[in-house]
This record gives sequence, structure tokens and C-alpha cells, in this order.
Amino acid sequence: MPPEHDVTKVDEFGLIARLFAPLAARHGGALGLTDDCALFDGPGDYAWAVTSDALVAGVHFLPDDPPELIARKLIRVNLSDLAAMGAAPRFILMACCFPIGVTSDWLDRFAAGLKADCDEFSVALIGGDTVATPGPLTLCLTALGEVPKGAALLRSNARSGDEIWVSGTLGDAAYGLSVAQNRAGALSAPLQADLLARYRIPQPRIALGLHLRGLVGGCMDISDGLVGDLDHICQTSGVGAELMAEDLPLSAAALAAREAGLGAHLALTGGDDYELLFTAAPDQRPALEAIGRRLGLRLSRIGRIMAGQGVRVLDRHGQPLALKSGGYQHFSGGETGS
Amino acid sequence: MPPEHDVTKVDEFGLIARLFAPLAARHGGALGLTDDCALFDGPGDYAWAVTSDALVAGVHFLPDDPPELIARKLIRVNLSDLAAMGAAPRFILMACCFPIGVTSDWLDRFAAGLKADCDEFSVALIGGDTVATPGPLTLCLTALGEVPKGAALLRSNARSGDEIWVSGTLGDAAYGLSVAQNRAGALSAPLQADLLARYRIPQPRIALGLHLRGLVGGCMDISDGLVGDLDHICQTSGVGAELMAEDLPLSAAALAAREAGLGAHLALTGGDDYELLFTAAPDQRPALEAIGRRLGLRLSRIGRIMAGQGVRVLDRHGQPLALKSGGYQHFSGGETGS
Repeated sequence: MPPEHDVTKVDEFGLIARLFAPLAARHGGALGLTDDCALFDGPGDYAWAVTSDALVAGVHFLPDDPPELIARKLIRVNLSDLAAMGAAPRFILMACCFPIGVTSDWLDRFAAGLKADCDEFSVALIGGDTVATPGPLTLCLTALGEVPKGAALLRSNARSGDEIWVSGTLGDAAYGLSVAQNRAGALSAPLQADLLARYRIPQPRIALGLHLRGLVGGCMDISDGLVGDLDHICQTSGVGAELMAEDLPLSAAALAAREAGLGAHLALTGGDDYELLFTAAPDQRPALEAIGRRLGLRLSRIGRIMAGQGVRVLDRHGQPLALKSGGYQHFSGGETGS
Repeated sequence: MPPEHDVTKVDEFGLIARLFAPLAARHGGALGLTDDCALFDGPGDYAWAVTSDALVAGVHFLPDDPPELIARKLIRVNLSDLAAMGAAPRFILMACCFPIGVTSDWLDRFAAGLKADCDEFSVALIGGDTVATPGPLTLCLTALGEVPKGAALLRSNARSGDEIWVSGTLGDAAYGLSVAQNRAGALSAPLQADLLARYRIPQPRIALGLHLRGLVGGCMDISDGLVGDLDHICQTSGVGAELMAEDLPLSAAALAAREAGLGAHLALTGGDDYELLFTAAPDQRPALEAIGRRLGLRLSRIGRIMAGQGVRVLDRHGQPLALKSGGYQHFSGGETGS
């Protein structure tokens, strides 16, 4: 194919909007392909939420990552999409493209990882496909969860005046990638282990998603970086946002990594954290704080929604911060970074 | 990975049974991962049937196949699984791994193919993923269709005494692959075009699947070859089968290809035909013949189900035919062939 029309110049979201969104118009529950999941009718008062994600060796994980962890990441990034809709996970389907020469030992360990997470999240594997590929290991998972009709958390419900919240801590996974790439030697072994675990084993915030039903405005999971993902909420909701950089929740390990020079703004731009990002009217603050206490999960207010468009990040002096990148885009040719 | 444990020695079905089927035990509708689709609750008296298949360039299609046709094959092989369950297609999700350097023109043509088939089959694209891969183009589609509860056509319902039926003609797609590989120069251009079309654009037998509800025993679509696929029906139903080689329906083009030496037994072993293979009690014969007339679709009786196990193929003299291969298996390292 002639390089002059290289798709690396086309961003993933533009591609979806231009080519694929028109094919979704037939079904309102597709949400224009702009949300974490699509919705369709389930039994009684329930709807099904469905999402499908692909992971490629060398792009989304490292080829020599432990097979158990690759399996668990595959499941968890999809369950995170269900969590972002407030859906309870039920089923997965998995299409595996295994490279020629994959070993029985590797497959056994991969299956053990699948089993661990199917058990942990009470999901059943109900279908899929197993093929050989001359290319890198490529895994595609489809996850199905149930949510009461009308209760799904949507990206498009953020309103001017909402406060912006985030669960857990930010940037850990991006710093963890530095660890996986042996670029974090300045950090102590325990801190490296903490960050690496965040990169390798995301924690889908399923319980939080269920608790947020009925309380929040816009909601999504952070997979491509806070600023870029918040911009998706803003675009689908027709609003703007202001983030307070000083209010971002950082783990001790992420703080140490930042001080060690591994990236100044990874809490803003680093991908793969899979925390929930949501907006809520200020009068929901006590209810949200109670949920955080009940779940033992840090919930932080980090900014607010306003009329307008785009995401502004303010530093401790209230001055706009300039960022090199708004988030991770697969077709921009870059890797998660500051 | 050490080559001594190469998975090419492990067959796909053994892999699924050993590693993945235990993860399906939690949900009866997974059907032990042995059927064309899984089933789960839909609205009212309906169930959803869901299937997920991956296609890899160089394995399931040729890298320089027209992008429109790749898109349509991707949709159709999945809709064929819905047809085999008697389900009406409704939704698709698509995870695309595009090679670096894919062009806008290629993507436009691919999307045009998707649109043509979404329109033709009245399905909506409701989700998916778009990523870049350093490997070959890899496409994973998940398809959802609806079927009245209890009416799904299952592989496991074949009974001793049933007659074996098949729709359309057999072997065309495998001979079509010979055309695509420029090995069919002995055939006239129109015959080559017929066979190539069967290889490139499968016809999912959706209307037939809907009509077969309530009439048939075991049912599946033929993707890996008649003999091997019939053996799946036999295994899940706990029966054996006898096929009459002389009764297999061959198109004029396939007959010419066979006479030209392009494979003596591709109607028995060739993959990718995507016809429906089903069994039915002899007293259903008039009803089935009426359906064939109504749909303008050839339906042929080609053998019978009996107690026991395995598939025997008898020649015109009633003598067992020896076949080199029982069908296409992705991990056996072979390509569709005689």
C-alpha cells in the first residue's frame, strides 16, 4: 500500500467517526460508537452492555509478559468498560490468534490466568475462536454485562456545574510501563513492583460502577490518559472542563517516579490506569464520599465541568499548563508517555 | 518458545476442550463451547445467540483480496453461525487490527463492504475496537442474533434414523481458493469466476435457518469441511453417520474443477462453503422439500444418522472411501485441500 496515504496520520477516533459510526445509526443503543459499551435489550427490566477490545503483543503488552497476566489484562480491560457503564459482568467471548510455535506450557499458563479472573469476577467464557497467526499474539475479547434499563452510566451526561471525580490514583500504569522497560532503576524494588502491578493487572472498578448508578453525570474509564479521556466526556456531553493538576491523586510510588524524572505529567496523560472518571452535581458529594468509604477506595475531586468545550489544566497558581500530548492514540504512532 | 512443545501438534478442538471448556461450565447456554453460538437471555420469549470469529490475512483470506470482500467475508462467516442456530441477525461488534501503513483508500473500501452487508442483512455495528498491529491485518467480529427460547438449532440433537441434509452445493469455495491461487487455469473464465465468488463471498443461509426451526435434529454450518463438521454433530449428539459420496450436490463449476484434477474430494473435505448441514427425521422430508422450493435453494439428502460413532463415506458401490483429511484444522498446519 502506498505510504503517502499512511493511516498513521489518521487518528483512531476520526476513523471511527467517519467510517464506522454511520453503520451504527440503525441502533440507538450503539450510542454512536462513542461510549464504553453498547446497550441492547435483556430480559425483563434489564439491558445488556457489550464491549469488544483487541490486544496485540508489542502494542498493548510486552511479548514476554507472563501469559497469566496477559490473560488477566485482556479480561480486565474489557470488564473496566462494563464498570464504566455501571454494568455487572456476566459473559465473555474470546478470539485468540496464537503465533505459530506457541507452546503448551504457555497456553496452560494463559488458561490459568483466564480461570483466575473468570472465578474472581464470576464470568463465564461462552464462546470465541482459536486460530493461528503468522504475526504477533493477538487477542480479542467481547464482554457482556447487565444493567437495569435506563441506569447505564453514559459519557454524554456531564452537565455544566458538575464536579469531576476520579477513583484510585493516576499515572501508576504509565510509570509501570517504564519499570517493564527497565527504565526505572532509580526506584526501590518495592515501588517498582507496585507500579509494574498497576501496569500489568488493571483493577476494573466494577463495584464502584454499580454504586454510581443514579448518582453521576458523565462516566468512563481512563484507558488513554485523563486529559484525552475527559475530553471524550466533554465532546459527547457538549461541555468544557477544568482540571486542577495539584488535586490529582498520586500514589507514593508515582510521586517517587515523578521525582526520579520518569515523566512529569503521566497522571494527566498516561494510559492504562483503568480508574473511573465521572462527573456529579456538587450535592452528590456526601453520597460519593460515603461510597468511597464503604468500598475502601479513594475518590478524588479534581476539577469541574463548565459551559464551552475542551479541557484546561490549571497549575497550583491557577495558570494553564501546556501538555505535549492529550492522550494515547493508537494511530499516532506514539507509546504511552509524558 | 521451545519448538518441542509446538502447538501445531495440538488440534484446535482439543485445545478448546482441554483449556477453555472448563471456563464455560458456569453457563449452560455456552453449550460447552461445542456449538456454533452461545445462548443467553433476551427480552420476553427470546434468547440471544452470540458468536465471535477471527480472520487473519494470509490464513483466512489473501492479503491482496479486495477490501470490500474481506469486510463482507468477515460479516458473513459470523452470520453463518447465527444461521446455523436459526437466529435472526441483529448486531455486530468489530475489533480491527490494522497493519501499520494501511491506506485511507483501503479503509474506505473496507467500510463500503461493511456498509453493503450491514444493509443487506439489516444488522447494526454497535461497537468494537480499532488498533494498529505490526503483524498481518487481523479482524475479529462478534455477531448477535435473536431466536425464540427453546427454538435454537443445536448440533447435539441428531438422532439415529435421521436423514442428513445439506443446502446448496459443496466444494465450490475450496475450488475457488485454487482459482485465487492461480491454480485453475484449465477452467473457463466464467467457471473460475463462479468458484472464486463462492470462496470470497459466502452466502449465510439465514432464511433457511429460520425456516428449519422446529423441523430438524442436529444443525451446523460447514466451515471446515463436510466430513469433519458432520463428525462434530455426531460427537455432540452421540451418534454415527454414513454419507453417500455420489449424493453430494456439486455445482457445474465444481464438477469441472474436479474433472480438471483440482481435487477429487473437496466436496467432502473442503472448507469455507458455509452451507447448512442438518439432520431430520424421514417424515420431515415433504416439509423440507417445500422449504427448498419456497427459498429457491437446493436441499439434498446425502446420508443418514445411525447408532455408533464416526463418519463413514460410501462410494457408488457402497464401499467405504478412504480420505486423507477429515477437514480443515487451523493448528494442523494444513490449508484447505483434498
